[in-house]
Amino acid sequence: MENEKKGIFSRTLYPNTRPTIFAQLLNNIMIEIRFPDQSIRTYEKGTTALEIAQSISEGLARNVLSASFNGKTVEAVTPLGEDGDLRLYTWNDQEGKTAFWHSSAHLLAQSILALYPDAKLTIGPAIENGFYYDVDFGTASFSEKDLPTLEKQFLDFAREKFEFKMRMSSKAEALAFYQKEQNPFKLELIENLEDGTISFCDHADFTDLCRGGHIPHTGFVKAVKLLSVAGAYWRGDETKPQLTRIYGISFPKQKELTEYLALLEEAKKRDHRKLGKELELFTFSQKVGQGLPLWLPKGTALRERLENFLKKAQARAGYEQVISPHIGNKELYMTSGHYEKYGADSFQPIQTPAEGEEFLLKPMNCPHHCEIYKTKPWSYRDLPKRYAEFGTVYRYEQSGELHGLTRVRGFTQDDAHIFCMPEQLDEEFKKVIDLVLYVFSSLGFENFTAQVSLRDPEKPEKYIGATKNWELAEQAIINAAKEKNLDYVIETGEAAFYGPKLDFMVKDALGRKWQLGTIQVDYNLPERFELTYKGSDNELHRPVMIHRAPFGSMERFVAILLEHTGGNFPLWLMPHQVNILCVSEKHKNYAQKVLSFLENHEIRALLDDRNETIGKKIRESELSKVPYMIILGEKEAENETVSLRKHQEGDIGSFGIEQVVEQLKKEIKESQATFEV
Amino acid sequence: MENEKKGIFSRTLYPNTRPTIFAQLLNNIMIEIRFPDQSIRTYEKGTTALEIAQSISEGLARNVLSASFNGKTVEAVTPLGEDGDLRLYTWNDQEGKTAFWHSSAHLLAQSILALYPDAKLTIGPAIENGFYYDVDFGTASFSEKDLPTLEKQFLDFAREKFEFKMRMSSKAEALAFYQKEQNPFKLELIENLEDGTISFCDHADFTDLCRGGHIPHTGFVKAVKLLSVAGAYWRGDETKPQLTRIYGISFPKQKELTEYLALLEEAKKRDHRKLGKELELFTFSQKVGQGLPLWLPKGTALRERLENFLKKAQARAGYEQVISPHIGNKELYMTSGHYEKYGADSFQPIQTPAEGEEFLLKPMNCPHHCEIYKTKPWSYRDLPKRYAEFGTVYRYEQSGELHGLTRVRGFTQDDAHIFCMPEQLDEEFKKVIDLVLYVFSSLGFENFTAQVSLRDPEKPEKYIGATKNWELAEQAIINAAKEKNLDYVIETGEAAFYGPKLDFMVKDALGRKWQLGTIQVDYNLPERFELTYKGSDNELHRPVMIHRAPFGSMERFVAILLEHTGGNFPLWLMPHQVNILCVSEKHKNYAQKVLSFLENHEIRALLDDRNETIGKKIRESELSKVPYMIILGEKEAENETVSLRKHQEGDIGSFGIEQVVEQLKKEIKESQATFEV
Repeated sequence: MENEKKGIFSRTLYPNTRPTIFAQLLNNIMIEIRFPDQSIRTYEKGTTALEIAQSISEGLARNVLSASFNGKTVEAVTPLGEDGDLRLYTWNDQEGKTAFWHSSAHLLAQSILALYPDAKLTIGPAIENGFYYDVDFGTASFSEKDLPTLEKQFLDFAREKFEFKMRMSSKAEALAFYQKEQNPFKLELIENLEDGTISFCDHADFTDLCRGGHIPHTGFVKAVKLLSVAGAYWRGDETKPQLTRIYGISFPKQKELTEYLALLEEAKKRDHRKLGKELELFTFSQKVGQGLPLWLPKGTALRERLENFLKKAQARAGYEQVISPHIGNKELYMTSGHYEKYGADSFQPIQTPAEGEEFLLKPMNCPHHCEIYKTKPWSYRDLPKRYAEFGTVYRYEQSGELHGLTRVRGFTQDDAHIFCMPEQLDEEFKKVIDLVLYVFSSLGFENFTAQVSLRDPEKPEKYIGATKNWELAEQAIINAAKEKNLDYVIETGEAAFYGPKLDFMVKDALGRKWQLGTIQVDYNLPERFELTYKGSDNELHRPVMIHRAPFGSMERFVAILLEHTGGNFPLWLMPHQVNILCVSEKHKNYAQKVLSFLENHEIRALLDDRNETIGKKIRESELSKVPYMIILGEKEAENETVSLRKHQEGDIGSFGIEQVVEQLKKEIKESQATFEV
Repeated sequence: MENEKKGIFSRTLYPNTRPTIFAQLLNNIMIEIRFPDQSIRTYEKGTTALEIAQSISEGLARNVLSASFNGKTVEAVTPLGEDGDLRLYTWNDQEGKTAFWHSSAHLLAQSILALYPDAKLTIGPAIENGFYYDVDFGTASFSEKDLPTLEKQFLDFAREKFEFKMRMSSKAEALAFYQKEQNPFKLELIENLEDGTISFCDHADFTDLCRGGHIPHTGFVKAVKLLSVAGAYWRGDETKPQLTRIYGISFPKQKELTEYLALLEEAKKRDHRKLGKELELFTFSQKVGQGLPLWLPKGTALRERLENFLKKAQARAGYEQVISPHIGNKELYMTSGHYEKYGADSFQPIQTPAEGEEFLLKPMNCPHHCEIYKTKPWSYRDLPKRYAEFGTVYRYEQSGELHGLTRVRGFTQDDAHIFCMPEQLDEEFKKVIDLVLYVFSSLGFENFTAQVSLRDPEKPEKYIGATKNWELAEQAIINAAKEKNLDYVIETGEAAFYGPKLDFMVKDALGRKWQLGTIQVDYNLPERFELTYKGSDNELHRPVMIHRAPFGSMERFVAILLEHTGGNFPLWLMPHQVNILCVSEKHKNYAQKVLSFLENHEIRALLDDRNETIGKKIRESELSKVPYMIILGEKEAENETVSLRKHQEGDIGSFGIEQVVEQLKKEIKESQATFEV
């Protein structure tokens, strides 16, 4: 193994082969380091993570940014003083990026003080993408136009390869330092720290109050972009002083920064809120209420097309559609347990003007479907029953949490509940996975992983239902995920309170991950609603329930689909597949004939016979993203042909209309997968 | 004119031709009677309505049951003492029926006292269909089994042709009478009457406290059915004594009773609540809440078929579908005026756990659609905009008012709002009428009338909006109704608070009338929401709004359709059009082939391949009302033919499957009208 090059002692973890006596002799000067692959090596006490990396390979050492030792973040240059588990982080790990961006925040602070000596630093953490620093510039002015100068200073410092060095400090020392600096913010932070836990990080002549987690030196940072300037209140409290927040992102290579900025640009163009407005798909109104989308005609048509697509597949898979109201008596949610769990944080109960009843906006469709199941007695021969509903549910979110269609207060789940015998659970689960995979492939999501969420066995009080049932359900999910060859991870403690689940994460065209589609096993609601079926033994038994939603919600799915495709949906889904553009009003009649022909062949077409130039019509059609244009002018009307253009590609040529229809129908068919049951 | 036979003086109402001097001379001994056709005749003072009828024709006199004189109900035998307007009522008038059933209540009371001398009478009015009497039987028992005896006594008395005679009574006399009778109920009634207004009605030796309105004598009542016995509290107050209520209905001919009872039997069979359960269309759950229907799979399929049918027609008529949430900020309904008008009697506002927002369950879709209209500026070239939504709304009803699907707390309107220029109103209104008529004809409602509801010009405070606008809107409705040759009546004072409307009343197969489909003009919401469009003059103008719903609501419409058709819907609408029944399991494969063939030709078929006898399968298929059955046995499988049966009709013969498909497709097509725009 190449990895063993510089290891002084190395072996795999078989206790029986352990050279115990030798080890005991070395105990005072040597430490045992265990790696993620469970291999163990022995090093001199005081060796650093960086040196350990060097002992493995120079290449690794060049890339190590930070480390964790026994579960705690350490510097790559921290001497290790005891036995323990070591993880080395590079740019490929989120932990490596965090150290990189945390260190970049120090560089930013250093640069600010270099250019604005009177500025007061406050806090500056790494964030999901990059870092920021909140600064009190005092009487100095700072705006976006000042960012390039600051960036230049930042890179000048970075190139110096200053080492980051952690240093412990007494509380008194720390306070004295910032009293001298006249920095009330840092003083306030230190006041709240315990003496003996306070540390600073020094690099060059700059120092900052800091808990640690840096890269070895500033030279790793080869590229930086200071992205924006925003206002922020000290400690997020609007009664406290307003600070200037500077956002930035940095990379180990210039190329990575260039790519990131291009992605950011593309993501902006594809922002579903922007596209939703441009394509006239949906809107929001303050009067109707925040987070409550209004679907405009084109968005409604798109959504109906998606719903019909899934309805058709579900009909083939033996689902039955039902419709339930959007409110339910409070008692329904007392029975289901939702009221106890969520009541206080939800839209509050609806009172009636008489009779003292209380209703709740439905946050979930499952209790209603349980009541539908209870309408009549079932025999084992009738199962599984699969009730599907595009059910609109309402869940309260703070207004600050709302975001376009991805975080709303009312949304329509492509919900279904399968009531089956325990012995049918495995097969039903697999069938649901098939349906989810069909949806993904028909909508161009080729890149996805799955997450199996299990309960936290150490916190049984968080969950409703018997341990034995949980075990059965969890095993059924894992079995199905394995058999369907899903790329899945197991997350313990992430289950819903009523059962374990399988969530799908798709990667979109820009490489961003989205949670889409969920399948959940539930042994709990059938208990609470006392659901039964008569078995072949003539006795009553409890069915198992599966909750599932391949899209998740129509709102969120359309948002993700917009950002994934930039509005260029698969041909079968496009609201309009062809735009017929007349060169002049003279060709209206012929255009009408072409339109009818397309409509008779179930091709969705628009006719633009306005008195505008053909150039303008083509430009507008491009903006509306209709995949094909048919141009009709003098020549076409005479020869009874059509000129075909493709969106983003331009002229394709002149054809007979039958030929175009044939080609389009073929393409539409190929743009959607086939669902076999 | 035959009508003038016995008139002493008769003429039409032209003041110039009036023989004024002669009339003045006769003034003290003669009265002038004006008839509904505005003709006037002169009679001796003291002539009765019955005698006047006799003066016109013996046939009329035989049929006159009661009359009104100067707007007040009078007995047919009441002497008339002054000039006035006279209306004569026969069995064909609701007023005639009321007098008939009111008189029958007297007969019932007489019969009760004859058989139960200690019974205490309370009140006994005529109702919409028949009459009842609430009686305190004291210690005597009375139940449904006693009804036949009572009926016989009733008819024995009726045949005596006892005359009804009204008689005034002083309060003291009246009290004395019932003190003697020891009847605390009548005493309580009389205590609340003013002396001088108290009257009795005598017939035979029976007398009852009564305001009048009888038929001339009991002999008119030729048939009676005492329908049921129920409990009722004195004055509807459950703290007061419980009485026995006896319901009955009576007719001038035995044949009419027989027909009525057959209709009642048929109506019971067709009760949508009963059919809904039998056909598994919908259900209710106490836990979900009263008046909140849960649509079962077969009902959902039926409803979706209806919705798709209308969506298709609406797409052709230029409507665009939108989707809006089921709640709205309270501010939305403050703007629309709904909160002020209905807030207190509605489901109460929904509070949020933070931020102090208030939402309302939406009682109407219009405010949401106004906000959708406001999404962008419109030009006169863009109008009309027609936004359609199958929008589920929630309106509070007292639990006692709820009834199956016809009176619910949550229902889905087939709603649409048309935003147009004032000069487009006439045409748009006519187009909507066309759509409504298309719906009626496709669903077998051939018998309908229309009601134009105008404001009450004397109560302007009841309505929102300018008088001028109301006049314009009312005229547009009347014009359209005329032009479309609707059979309509005008009802003043029946308009909605925001505008006049046109409602359709359909008569179902049992002759019952239902309000279905509404079209409303609205000049008001566009004002309140400040809606505008830019006219050809480049100035901003207010559009007009039309609210319309051809079905009214999906719930109510399905209920009425069920009662109208008894569940035998037009073929295009049937959830399943064909039921394939295998004689034995051996023919499963062939049956599967037949099923696929039908499905490929878009015929909705079921396959019953259970291991049951063919007799049982046919019986169950009959119950489920599937219009056609295909029977597959040995012979059919061998010859590749099918045996066809029709629901309620039986065997039709043996055919090739292609032949059956062709015939069915033709029939399906013919069962739905064509919508031309």
